[in-house]
Amino acid sequence: MALIVQKFGGTSVANAERIFNVANRVVETYDQDNDVVVVVSAQGDTTDELIEKAKEINPRASKREMDVLLSTGEQQSMALLAMAIEKIGRPVVSLSAWQVGLMTDSNYSNSRIKRIVGNRIQAELDKHKIVVMAGFQGINKFDDVTTLGRGGSDTSAVAVASALGADLCQIYTDVRGVFTADPRIVPDAVQLNDISYDEMLELASLGANVLHNRSVEMAKKYNINLEVLSSLEKAPGTIVKEANSVEKMLVRGVARDNDIARISLVGVEDTPGKAFQIFAHLAKKKVNVDVILQSIGRDGKKDISFTVPSSQLEATRKTLDENSGMIGAEHIDINENVSKVSIVGAGMASNPGVAATMFEALYDAGININMISTSEIKVSVLIDKPYAEDAVRAIHAKFHLDAKRD
Amino acid sequence: MALIVQKFGGTSVANAERIFNVANRVVETYDQDNDVVVVVSAQGDTTDELIEKAKEINPRASKREMDVLLSTGEQQSMALLAMAIEKIGRPVVSLSAWQVGLMTDSNYSNSRIKRIVGNRIQAELDKHKIVVMAGFQGINKFDDVTTLGRGGSDTSAVAVASALGADLCQIYTDVRGVFTADPRIVPDAVQLNDISYDEMLELASLGANVLHNRSVEMAKKYNINLEVLSSLEKAPGTIVKEANSVEKMLVRGVARDNDIARISLVGVEDTPGKAFQIFAHLAKKKVNVDVILQSIGRDGKKDISFTVPSSQLEATRKTLDENSGMIGAEHIDINENVSKVSIVGAGMASNPGVAATMFEALYDAGININMISTSEIKVSVLIDKPYAEDAVRAIHAKFHLDAKRD
Repeated sequence: MALIVQKFGGTSVANAERIFNVANRVVETYDQDNDVVVVVSAQGDTTDELIEKAKEINPRASKREMDVLLSTGEQQSMALLAMAIEKIGRPVVSLSAWQVGLMTDSNYSNSRIKRIVGNRIQAELDKHKIVVMAGFQGINKFDDVTTLGRGGSDTSAVAVASALGADLCQIYTDVRGVFTADPRIVPDAVQLNDISYDEMLELASLGANVLHNRSVEMAKKYNINLEVLSSLEKAPGTIVKEANSVEKMLVRGVARDNDIARISLVGVEDTPGKAFQIFAHLAKKKVNVDVILQSIGRDGKKDISFTVPSSQLEATRKTLDENSGMIGAEHIDINENVSKVSIVGAGMASNPGVAATMFEALYDAGININMISTSEIKVSVLIDKPYAEDAVRAIHAKFHLDAKRD
Repeated sequence: MALIVQKFGGTSVANAERIFNVANRVVETYDQDNDVVVVVSAQGDTTDELIEKAKEINPRASKREMDVLLSTGEQQSMALLAMAIEKIGRPVVSLSAWQVGLMTDSNYSNSRIKRIVGNRIQAELDKHKIVVMAGFQGINKFDDVTTLGRGGSDTSAVAVASALGADLCQIYTDVRGVFTADPRIVPDAVQLNDISYDEMLELASLGANVLHNRSVEMAKKYNINLEVLSSLEKAPGTIVKEANSVEKMLVRGVARDNDIARISLVGVEDTPGKAFQIFAHLAKKKVNVDVILQSIGRDGKKDISFTVPSSQLEATRKTLDENSGMIGAEHIDINENVSKVSIVGAGMASNPGVAATMFEALYDAGININMISTSEIKVSVLIDKPYAEDAVRAIHAKFHLDAKRD
């Protein structure tokens, strides 16, 4: 008998048929003599519809009231799923964040989970009930409703798995697991049996939209075994776990990120601390600066280039404008026609030839590299967007990632 | 400076335009230096849509989970109204039942309010905020969500008015107040300035769908001044208050109830306690038996006739079937083609001629009376349904209820 947390996203509960599909999955796990806690997101487009409703009334509504409104989506889907489980004939109870005692900070619309207080879930499990809880939502110390932002339900699942000491936290999604590359780009991409937390973190931040980083970070921190698997087909997924127990591979996967922009500050005065000042201002606006390249100074001037997510381009532009005096660039060049292609793998930390092999693959394919960024377990290159898919395929082939493995 | 509770029903918040209409009403009251607590129902058809969704999944879903689902409707409308008030630029906070501490019993889908614990509302008022709270919902001692059943939001409003010692509890609705008769039947019906709790209770139970009885009962118990008024037009409504301070009138109004059925148990054995046994069984099934008529025994047999609401006819039929042996009727006659027409007024308690005047009006109009039931402040007659509207008009005219009053 194990305690298993299962999380189902919005597409998995989008209509009555899919809700029953989820209910059957849950009941199957329960019938195998497991305690089951289910975390659900809002149905399909519910959240978007609620946002539309709010915008019609007040586009600048407070985040507190937005959270009150949006949290109803999960409350509805948890009740509907509980009703489906009742129909199948198993004991079940649905619980909102305030009933679970899922405490967060007060950063409305993007809260962080602090802890789960109270033992309501355990009490219900002790009564042999399946517990269905609302993902994405929490409450703060003022007893106000908060929401967790993007990927919030994944984080809810990991948090409850941690609080209860669950044996496994399964994240059901619309893909079968983590692949060596996006199968839509590389048809012979292979599903990974397992992957380390760090590798998953790199892949997630590189555009492999399987798990949200916050949930992986939390799983790593509390050493929770995560499994990513499909809610539609029955097949083993990919286990995310500690590095020392995962399969050893030089490169685990190739990822591409198209939602990126390159900013070049041309002709900046070459004085100490200039780059620090610029990036400190961007950090204050919560802009995630990624690949950074700084030219060698010449005639007391230098160029600073960096990438930001497309979604943060406006905030970046605004911050740069507001600080144009301090920056003192001759001009600012913005290029949205770029992609970041990356390889990830714990094996490369002790294998310095990996980056060279990647560059060779790109050279053979006639693709020019704009910028390079490396970490212990990752190499990213910035290239022109039209070549991104070719680049992924060339690198995937070069590292023989399509090779059948045990 | 007064504390005013304002309740707005589902039609009053059905869309963005109406929500702003409500927000303006609320802000106007707030700007006149009042503390304001607003109680809202779910938007328009939200509750029906949620019930449909639930039925699709499980027509026999538990009432607990139905309450979890349905309570989201009020949570959405309270957030949307709060956003509209934010837009107008006044401080506001929305609160659900668990935040308010509105405690009920555990009779899911039809709970009774027990008390309001905690002082969250008062704390928010002390910060000069407008408080918008969800009507219709509560929580029980297990920290589970409950709903209050029909007319629940009215009851929420009265309960919170009582808990806070409010000066006035305004129930905004789609009519302007309480009239001497339904204006759709009697065009010259007159709006009442005030009415006593008891008269309102009789009118409500007689089909004048202005206020739900439970809210009037609670207002009477805690001596809360209620005002029924229109959310659409600006006009004084009808105040519901203690009998000793209301305008003295013989008859306050005429009401008609078409949703009624007459059951006749023909040829029942004339033994003591027979009627008691029959009505005890019906009471156990929560059937509201109204007008009762028992014939004088003859040859050891008698006939028992009574009326029930149409909605409870099925339950009545079932109960009678299950106890047919005990009842031992020769046959059971059911007639749904009947209406109950009633006059209500505290003045008639000390004026025995009122019933006779009513019967005379019906006689003049050529309408036959099937059954009669009287109380201290009410006379009801059962007549054939096709004559109901004529009866209302004839009685209204006979008592000169269209007379202009101060």
